[in-house]
Amino acid sequence: MPDLTPDAAHLAAGLEALSTFVQSAQPGWTRQVFSEPYLASREWTFRRMVEAGLSDVHQDAAGNIVGRLPGQHPELKPLMTGSHTDTVWGGGRFDGMVGVVGAIEAARLIRESGRPLARDLIVVDFLGEEANEFGLSCLGSRAITGELTPGHLDRLGEAAGATLGATMAGFGLDPDQALRLAQPAGSLHAYIELHIEQGPLLEAAGKEIGVVTAIAGIERLLAAFQGRGDHAGTMPMADRHDALLAAAEAVLAVEHEACCAPVHAVSTTGRIEALPGAFNVVPDSARIWAEVRSIDPAWLGGVKGRLAQRIAGLAAARGVETALEWLNDQPPVATTPAVRETIAQAAEAVGASWEAVPSGAGHDAAHLPRLGPIGMIFVPSQGGRSHVPEEFTTTEDTARGVQVLTQTLIALDAQPAIPA
Amino acid sequence: MPDLTPDAAHLAAGLEALSTFVQSAQPGWTRQVFSEPYLASREWTFRRMVEAGLSDVHQDAAGNIVGRLPGQHPELKPLMTGSHTDTVWGGGRFDGMVGVVGAIEAARLIRESGRPLARDLIVVDFLGEEANEFGLSCLGSRAITGELTPGHLDRLGEAAGATLGATMAGFGLDPDQALRLAQPAGSLHAYIELHIEQGPLLEAAGKEIGVVTAIAGIERLLAAFQGRGDHAGTMPMADRHDALLAAAEAVLAVEHEACCAPVHAVSTTGRIEALPGAFNVVPDSARIWAEVRSIDPAWLGGVKGRLAQRIAGLAAARGVETALEWLNDQPPVATTPAVRETIAQAAEAVGASWEAVPSGAGHDAAHLPRLGPIGMIFVPSQGGRSHVPEEFTTTEDTARGVQVLTQTLIALDAQPAIPA
Repeated sequence: MPDLTPDAAHLAAGLEALSTFVQSAQPGWTRQVFSEPYLASREWTFRRMVEAGLSDVHQDAAGNIVGRLPGQHPELKPLMTGSHTDTVWGGGRFDGMVGVVGAIEAARLIRESGRPLARDLIVVDFLGEEANEFGLSCLGSRAITGELTPGHLDRLGEAAGATLGATMAGFGLDPDQALRLAQPAGSLHAYIELHIEQGPLLEAAGKEIGVVTAIAGIERLLAAFQGRGDHAGTMPMADRHDALLAAAEAVLAVEHEACCAPVHAVSTTGRIEALPGAFNVVPDSARIWAEVRSIDPAWLGGVKGRLAQRIAGLAAARGVETALEWLNDQPPVATTPAVRETIAQAAEAVGASWEAVPSGAGHDAAHLPRLGPIGMIFVPSQGGRSHVPEEFTTTEDTARGVQVLTQTLIALDAQPAIPA
Repeated sequence: MPDLTPDAAHLAAGLEALSTFVQSAQPGWTRQVFSEPYLASREWTFRRMVEAGLSDVHQDAAGNIVGRLPGQHPELKPLMTGSHTDTVWGGGRFDGMVGVVGAIEAARLIRESGRPLARDLIVVDFLGEEANEFGLSCLGSRAITGELTPGHLDRLGEAAGATLGATMAGFGLDPDQALRLAQPAGSLHAYIELHIEQGPLLEAAGKEIGVVTAIAGIERLLAAFQGRGDHAGTMPMADRHDALLAAAEAVLAVEHEACCAPVHAVSTTGRIEALPGAFNVVPDSARIWAEVRSIDPAWLGGVKGRLAQRIAGLAAARGVETALEWLNDQPPVATTPAVRETIAQAAEAVGASWEAVPSGAGHDAAHLPRLGPIGMIFVPSQGGRSHVPEEFTTTEDTARGVQVLTQTLIALDAQPAIPA
């Protein structure tokens, strides 16, 4: 058996190098999609793929950086692995990056092993996976699965003051062509994504590898409250229509949903605003931005109606009007059972402990089922922290994840067809 | 008896003229202290005083526009009347302006009646009565009562990026000299302020004139919440330290205080913020800006401790730390009983219905007791609305208020000394 042990120092140096591309005026390791540092970081990814000996390294029309490790039978359906290198505002150094640096390392190991795969292995750094000002995550993976629409390209970004399409064009991409990137349904043998867990389950269980069972669906809520502005010193309490009070009750109602859920679920209000925003004026309007996630589609479907009724009812009791808008970000997505099984066997083969875990975070993988079977490999996140500067995964855990990814790719490559 | 009927058309035209000086990029009739339109509006006030025949019209070092109607016995303590012409952000056309235009009109009526007062009558347009970015209301009235301090002048304004002192200097004032403007304690015979009610009590009671009993005290609260940022999809509900949830509970706790008060009281959270402010990140920090008002000093004193305990307790249960800062804006101030009596008699003399009402809003008058007896005359606000663009008082009500002010000044002038 050839040496398929990842070069831990090389992996760590890669993550370190990526972490230098940051928006220096922002906190943490911020590298948002379409920023200058993001452009620089993806030139780095491009070079890293070339250095690893991948062929045909290029940026596609949707901005995905793609490389290929040719197999012995290019007529077979290819394997694909990858992740993303953009971050949330104030984010960390591992979310996404581990899967890109790890995918390139796995391809390098296989290439240098002298035992080529039967199938082509496609390595991808997907464009813009994180939520952005256009309200559309997973830009690159949506493009290759045919989920990117002209309507998406017309969305206006608040800060950019431009549409997504125009912003892509300004980033050197071809938005019209990006709409035509969709690969045929079922054209992939399998897609595997290595990622940090971003939660505390593995650490709490003392396990080294997470075999992801499903990726949570996300329903996003924008709730607007319209009350009446009044002098805060003179309008009696009983005569008020205070939009912020209605919004505060909505924030607690959002929390209540997931706390009381019979299934794994989370619900969060991430942003709030009340206007006009003075000490001495009763707020006439307020907005909250919230989301609810679960791997259970039935529960997730029901929560929209329940929450809408509760929020509107609480506001109405205050004489405050509500306008609720739900944005479905993604439905829950189960991983492919046979791929899960292969990952678990690969973990055992390298002596790694593993546990089946759900993913509360969204991932590019959630968009890939149209193209073929999918699976995800998690490595532990210290303290379960993620989307914060403190986000951390040890080099040892990262290397172990790459080792499991490599063995999983080799094992999948040998399977004639993977049952859905 | 000379004709002391205010010129209603002249009053309305005056208010109309003032309403043209606005910060056009802001909503409503915004004319904040130190803005360009505020400068223009006070040149208008200056000219209006000169046209009304007042003597020695000038701007003092603290930016008050001051005029004098000389009495027959200048050795007697003078009377003073006035108000302010700045507005809150998104405010209206009557709050403050009615008292300035009305004071000038009352002086004009008395001058033109041919029956001069025994005492000098000082008419004032006070600088910056509304809350501003320096967290200090009633700038001009504080200056003449000796309440303006060097510490106040050192306060830094967020938007201005400058101290209050530097901002005053940039507005053509003399902040050092403003600190030395304090008039001797007890040097005024009486201070009377005409103002819109800004609340619904007079309209609800069907009364034309409000005789103000007391001006509510104001306690302002800045509460900061420090939790822990986490990925909103992966951190289980029970393991979170969500700063926004603690802030939302605090907003409702603030409301609870005044709703359950045994006395006249109001409590309002006017502003809230949560960071980092993304859909998919559990907020690590949040702040609220709130205030509590009452004319009852005992209740107002107690509310600080109760609310601090409740907010900190609710947050602690979530593992969220709190830092609470109370800023006393002003203690409750009772008006002088003998002045109230004089106002009520003046209202009856002109055939106006009246009611004794508290003032939930703060006023320049609240700072004047150090200089002498004080009283306030309210005219109705349509729908009780104020600090909003819809703020409205009829010309008829305004003219009636000026008529009562004029008669009150004449009656007070004749009183040898007013009991405290």
